[in-house]
Amino acid sequence: MGTRRDVLGGIGAGVFASALGGSAQAAPKRKLGYAVVGLGYYATRQIMPNLKDCEFAELKALVSGTPAKLEKYGAEYGIPKTHQYSYETYDRIRDNPDIDIVYVVLPNSMHAEYTIRAHQAGKHVMCEKPMAVSVAECQAMIAAAKKAGKKLMIGYRCHFEPYNLKAIETVKSGALGKPTLIFAEHGFYAGPNQWRLDKALSGGGSMMDIGIYSLNAARYLSGEEPVEVSAMEYTDRSDPRFKTVEDRIDWQLRFPSGLIADCVSSYSSNHNHYRVTGRKGWVELEPATNYEGQEMWTRLEGKREQVVLPKPAKNQFVRQLDHLPECIMSGREPIVSGEEGLRDMRLIEAIYRAAREHRAITLA
Amino acid sequence: MGTRRDVLGGIGAGVFASALGGSAQAAPKRKLGYAVVGLGYYATRQIMPNLKDCEFAELKALVSGTPAKLEKYGAEYGIPKTHQYSYETYDRIRDNPDIDIVYVVLPNSMHAEYTIRAHQAGKHVMCEKPMAVSVAECQAMIAAAKKAGKKLMIGYRCHFEPYNLKAIETVKSGALGKPTLIFAEHGFYAGPNQWRLDKALSGGGSMMDIGIYSLNAARYLSGEEPVEVSAMEYTDRSDPRFKTVEDRIDWQLRFPSGLIADCVSSYSSNHNHYRVTGRKGWVELEPATNYEGQEMWTRLEGKREQVVLPKPAKNQFVRQLDHLPECIMSGREPIVSGEEGLRDMRLIEAIYRAAREHRAITLA
Repeated sequence: MGTRRDVLGGIGAGVFASALGGSAQAAPKRKLGYAVVGLGYYATRQIMPNLKDCEFAELKALVSGTPAKLEKYGAEYGIPKTHQYSYETYDRIRDNPDIDIVYVVLPNSMHAEYTIRAHQAGKHVMCEKPMAVSVAECQAMIAAAKKAGKKLMIGYRCHFEPYNLKAIETVKSGALGKPTLIFAEHGFYAGPNQWRLDKALSGGGSMMDIGIYSLNAARYLSGEEPVEVSAMEYTDRSDPRFKTVEDRIDWQLRFPSGLIADCVSSYSSNHNHYRVTGRKGWVELEPATNYEGQEMWTRLEGKREQVVLPKPAKNQFVRQLDHLPECIMSGREPIVSGEEGLRDMRLIEAIYRAAREHRAITLA
Repeated sequence: MGTRRDVLGGIGAGVFASALGGSAQAAPKRKLGYAVVGLGYYATRQIMPNLKDCEFAELKALVSGTPAKLEKYGAEYGIPKTHQYSYETYDRIRDNPDIDIVYVVLPNSMHAEYTIRAHQAGKHVMCEKPMAVSVAECQAMIAAAKKAGKKLMIGYRCHFEPYNLKAIETVKSGALGKPTLIFAEHGFYAGPNQWRLDKALSGGGSMMDIGIYSLNAARYLSGEEPVEVSAMEYTDRSDPRFKTVEDRIDWQLRFPSGLIADCVSSYSSNHNHYRVTGRKGWVELEPATNYEGQEMWTRLEGKREQVVLPKPAKNQFVRQLDHLPECIMSGREPIVSGEEGLRDMRLIEAIYRAAREHRAITLA
């Protein structure tokens, strides 16, 4: 194992892929080891349980600032003390060859630092969305990955969810005719007293957290990059939840083809829905981006129909978690790399600016 | 009959209402006479057939520039030659006491002229939406009605449609909690070579024609007047349909309560839908503003349910057509007066300006 790990860790992914003939199927069935950084709800309830079902990945280490969490989840997942780290001892992951990938599931403002430190320790990184809290941070993360010769993937789970993939395929197939409108709405009621309402940790309000689903969906459904954005915000600053972050922000994107996307982000009402309309009809998901329970409808030639897909062998979490090891072993770039996170972050900055300046922003 | 008509035509509506105790029920069952101006699709397929079912209205005269249409519909509806007018002889309606109300169903750019001439002839007016093609025209129409001491109502049919009324009631009832978002989309594929694509006749593209349904719905569903508008247009000027008018224009409205409306208008895809979301759930109509076939759903406390209303005794057309005579007889103002049309037109001008100048417009 030591030798194999040295090969995976030490040789550029492209070289490794080339040695294997560039095929994932030719790669050995070894599972790459994940260290999960930040043991909050999403990490412990979604990522860690789903790692058990992965074909190419397994949980190998834990990083947390709370000793009781390390003890609890260490026992539950059989992670020895030697593979448990605090934020102070985090950089020692460098010396642990069982750790191939670091999954950063911390509050948004910590993404850049912990991603860069992981790269500096010679590890690949999966980082939750939003990638970071500024374009500058995203660029630094991409540079760190490049310098280390390691991969950086952003946790855009929906790119691995069958109904979302089917929606993309439906748009691409031409079944809707030329697409004219994407409407995408995401939101939930954010209760008080949580890190996401503290800008120092979250970097922003609903836009960063849940609105990014509307934004990313507009991009993957259109298959285009927008050329103009306008936006409108409403935040009741007398609401103690919104001392530092925004509540609601809606924006419009204009794409080169003429497609317009109207997008919604809210911390005051529940939304999880999108619809793409073309000349011949529409495709709709509701819920669209939940952990499970997606429902899909189409209206084509005036006929409204529900689309039901077979249950996939791997759910969206498992597919996402397996994708990075597959890319590492085959030398491919992840379908949702740091560049993808950076593109969203550039748009988020433009959306905030458009709302703040009450004017449309032309995108480069 | 002559005396009665003189009373109705010659005395201010308020005085008449007062004489009757202000109650429509106390008014005699006489039907007021409509002259329909412009014998196109909407007039001949919707308005004229529905006038037959009215309680307080009947078709009494026809105005058209096409002699064959006058002959055809004159015969079909039993309208004698003495009650048929061309645009040249139109002003002679002044001398016809059987005509109480003129219904203007002409291309948009003719609304103001034919409304004002009707008022000058001493008649009440029902004018189709959009009220006119500019704020200035709307103001002139309101002034003409006032000067004549006659009523002016705009053909906002949806204010008389049971599902739309139920949606308004649902929002007002508080069942949704505090409303945060209205999404309203209206559009259809406009085939080439029709008056609505000629700006000289239509005054504008999809916004004037079908987008106004999204706009008016945002106002009646919110029960508020917006304070800010932003907008984004896309028109392919190489498409021969769009030499003079816009194809698609989407806009955002911010209301004083913090409610945001995202609205869609299109001449390149079919849309007829709105949803109002609040903290506790949403109410949705699709189709929302069609001539018939409205379907309504709510999601309250996570439970999605269809709402089916009993078939009303009078459909939305009949209720709209009866409303103006009822107002005339009782001395009330129509619920959709010239002021209502003017409010939409002010917003349409602001939406066009926001799109043209790529910036948000603050509304007075």
